[in-house]
Amino acid sequence: MERHFDQELDDLKKDLLRMGSLVETAIFESVEALKSLDADRAQRVIDSDREVDSLENAIDEKTLDLLVLRQPVASDMRFIAMAMKIATDLERMADLAVDVAQRVVDLAVAPLLKPLIDIPQLALVAQRMTRGALDAFVAKDAEQAAAIILRDQEADLLRNAIQQELMEDFMMKDPASVPRAVPLLLVARHLERICDHATNIAENVIYMVNAKVVKHRPENLPPSS
Amino acid sequence: MERHFDQELDDLKKDLLRMGSLVETAIFESVEALKSLDADRAQRVIDSDREVDSLENAIDEKTLDLLVLRQPVASDMRFIAMAMKIATDLERMADLAVDVAQRVVDLAVAPLLKPLIDIPQLALVAQRMTRGALDAFVAKDAEQAAAIILRDQEADLLRNAIQQELMEDFMMKDPASVPRAVPLLLVARHLERICDHATNIAENVIYMVNAKVVKHRPENLPPSS
Repeated sequence: MERHFDQELDDLKKDLLRMGSLVETAIFESVEALKSLDADRAQRVIDSDREVDSLENAIDEKTLDLLVLRQPVASDMRFIAMAMKIATDLERMADLAVDVAQRVVDLAVAPLLKPLIDIPQLALVAQRMTRGALDAFVAKDAEQAAAIILRDQEADLLRNAIQQELMEDFMMKDPASVPRAVPLLLVARHLERICDHATNIAENVIYMVNAKVVKHRPENLPPSS
Repeated sequence: MERHFDQELDDLKKDLLRMGSLVETAIFESVEALKSLDADRAQRVIDSDREVDSLENAIDEKTLDLLVLRQPVASDMRFIAMAMKIATDLERMADLAVDVAQRVVDLAVAPLLKPLIDIPQLALVAQRMTRGALDAFVAKDAEQAAAIILRDQEADLLRNAIQQELMEDFMMKDPASVPRAVPLLLVARHLERICDHATNIAENVIYMVNAKVVKHRPENLPPSS
């Protein structure tokens, strides 16, 4: 019986890592599709969301079954409850990558306004924060999770810089650029929100490890590695 | 002991309703502040977010304590697990009302582009969906929850209409309008996302009542009332 329970927890962890890997791929693919304005590639990101949705449902059902049937205690309980919360965040992150892909479909009718530099940079931050938060979860490493939370500021700064450039250097100088600039501005916001969700995951990891709530309570943050 | 457990579940319900009521107020106040470009009123919405954050932490701790100490089964277990999920959505909704208030602070340096009609309408949809989803939760009414989910289309249509008007009638006609139009476009997106979260809550209510996942599975939706 004990062995079987460990196996179930391990399956749950694998489902979350699979979801995380799909999210990372969706972020990368949606921004690659944006760089080349490839609507077919964007459509594949949109279609791939179904697997993420199924995984979220599967994780919700597994966690509730585990809670009901196994009546776990202490750290196992926290692991299972956090798995449910993390799945919610990952599903929203995949939806945001779909939002990026949707903007590519909107944009693919005309050339890009400019070569993209800051948006791929922000996408890279989003991918690294996603990977880092999941790694911290698997390693049960609160310090690694705290380091992820600090990276969120970088994402905010990049988002603001992208927005300012699009408004001041494009939309306000050339009104005809508006239909091509607004979707890029939204892409920056979608990517920054992905980073916010990675931050949520990192906060949940710290709770799982230390049994201390850090969300809205920075004084409980461990020193970052 | 049993009586005490019922009391704890009742407290949890009250905390969620209190959070829901704060979210409704934050939506209303942020859009009233927008209509009159009242930065002080917007700042009060931003400040009030602390109470929502505290409630989310309190609910997270209460639900985990209940799961660990009470080892609930079947419908009590689903109620407690859904309370945790609903608190996550409510906290994000309050953050989005703060995002709206932040846009008011950005905008308050110049007159509004135009009298607002569709944005207050969308805010009203967001408030009603929030209230409706929480009412359905308290009443454990899956049909009422299904009716909420249908209203999300109305929010999408309003958001698209607002975005199109701002781009075509303002930004593309008068580049100087861009700094006043972009924040309004973002407000419409923030409000529409609040409706998405109300939809999530309604989906969780249906799961709680029917033990059927409807998220990503429309075939499991009950007929709406």
